[in-house]
Amino acid sequence: MDLKAYLRDKRALVDEALKAVFPEPQGLSADVVRAMTYSLFAGGKRLRPILCIGGAEAVGKEGTTVLPFACSLELIHTYSLIHDDLPVMDNDDLRRGKPTNHKVFGEAVALLAGDGLLTEAFRLMAGTSGVDPLSLLKVIRLVGSAAGYQGMVGGQVVDIQSEGKPVDPSLVDFIHSHKTGALIHASVTSGAILAQGTEEQVEAISSYGERIGLAFQIADDILDVEGDSKTMGKGVGGDARKKKITFPAAVGLQKAKEIQSRLIEEALGALKTFDEKAEPLRSLAVYIIERKK
Amino acid sequence: MDLKAYLRDKRALVDEALKAVFPEPQGLSADVVRAMTYSLFAGGKRLRPILCIGGAEAVGKEGTTVLPFACSLELIHTYSLIHDDLPVMDNDDLRRGKPTNHKVFGEAVALLAGDGLLTEAFRLMAGTSGVDPLSLLKVIRLVGSAAGYQGMVGGQVVDIQSEGKPVDPSLVDFIHSHKTGALIHASVTSGAILAQGTEEQVEAISSYGERIGLAFQIADDILDVEGDSKTMGKGVGGDARKKKITFPAAVGLQKAKEIQSRLIEEALGALKTFDEKAEPLRSLAVYIIERKK
Repeated sequence: MDLKAYLRDKRALVDEALKAVFPEPQGLSADVVRAMTYSLFAGGKRLRPILCIGGAEAVGKEGTTVLPFACSLELIHTYSLIHDDLPVMDNDDLRRGKPTNHKVFGEAVALLAGDGLLTEAFRLMAGTSGVDPLSLLKVIRLVGSAAGYQGMVGGQVVDIQSEGKPVDPSLVDFIHSHKTGALIHASVTSGAILAQGTEEQVEAISSYGERIGLAFQIADDILDVEGDSKTMGKGVGGDARKKKITFPAAVGLQKAKEIQSRLIEEALGALKTFDEKAEPLRSLAVYIIERKK
Repeated sequence: MDLKAYLRDKRALVDEALKAVFPEPQGLSADVVRAMTYSLFAGGKRLRPILCIGGAEAVGKEGTTVLPFACSLELIHTYSLIHDDLPVMDNDDLRRGKPTNHKVFGEAVALLAGDGLLTEAFRLMAGTSGVDPLSLLKVIRLVGSAAGYQGMVGGQVVDIQSEGKPVDPSLVDFIHSHKTGALIHASVTSGAILAQGTEEQVEAISSYGERIGLAFQIADDILDVEGDSKTMGKGVGGDARKKKITFPAAVGLQKAKEIQSRLIEEALGALKTFDEKAEPLRSLAVYIIERKK
């Protein structure tokens, strides 16, 4: 399949839906809307919404049926980047080649823009029409768990607290599977649940999601070592400077690449009973570790 | 009615339910759980959950039917206090007589504890069992709107940006109705919706909620001028020092008290067709402006 065209089409679909979520900045709330949309439209790959769409397609539904829900995942991802970039966290000045949110809007507004995106994400989810309400409530719980202290937030805390500490493979596994893996897993799995996949289908896609989620963060770690800062739109080598716990630091670059490849093989294996409608998910798995940014 | 006993009983009910939400802090996530529960159990009045319960009772249902949902409102309130106290925001050291979250856990963990509480709130909401799923989705949207950039977050942004600016009555009205009023309104209204109140009942309670929400923040402003710092567990006079836009600053103390009383009269008027089951809401309206902390 032509993954490049698929990604372009789905990204356009998601971008259009995202644009409809926020009003034109005006009145007293103009600044926070401006700050939220600044980061939301700063050039993200829309990977999480696309995985959600791909999960729905794999079990035989049109991707558009899960669209508002899929968009909400990008809001959550964007909020996490804004908060992560703040001076009290990673203190980053650049993201996707542009000044980070707090560099443009100040720390207070950036903090609140993140809060606003996270809150709006759940409002948006709950407004996904044309799906079974009980399935919708189930995936809201799934995403809440994946994004919260049992998932992404939990991973962030351990990530911050582990900087400069001895690198331990089980620690890096915890950080990565929570900080990045959990939301990626929830993205694709929620698509399959909302599209009324069978129990077996949902389980297989969940297994796929768990593996590509971890592989995605390992690929990020490797890009930070080997990547080209111009292509990536941000500095490289930052992990080592900040003494971040990463896979390459924990097990070496070669071993990290081996783990990454094994995870993708397992992810593809989980989809073996699916027909050609799972082709986008298969291509996405490979893309995740081969991407250059 | 004996409001004191009512508040004590409902607070115990809410506290017990809140305790069941979080596990004992352990493992790698222990710190964030500790930080979240530190602020959650720092002595809050549980006003928002109690209003939600009162809203359900007023239309004839047991308050326990809305309990998980009601608890989630306290998580949202607590997250907003943690973020509000951060140095980049109000930079407060004390809250309810105790050191603020970032004073105990550091700014990064406090930021993430707030994020974790907000996220967990929505997970919790979506898990409210025994209620109509479509009504549940509706109130999740209502709370999302009230807590987000169209409500609380929007009010916070304008509040922060208005410090030191000329005091304008329409500005203070915007800040208060968004920053505090919106979530209080959503709390009591969601209780009535979840308890399957009729359209007229929900509308009346919504009208009540709007008025007590604004009155609550005016009362807070007045307490900051006239209150006793020992009773309140925090310093008084902070609003004036920070050049905050408040009702007393905008219209004078006497006029602020008049507006407050008028709002409570209107709130009670909105409930005139309700029977004795709305007595807790009536008493709460009066309590809101007569409280000492």
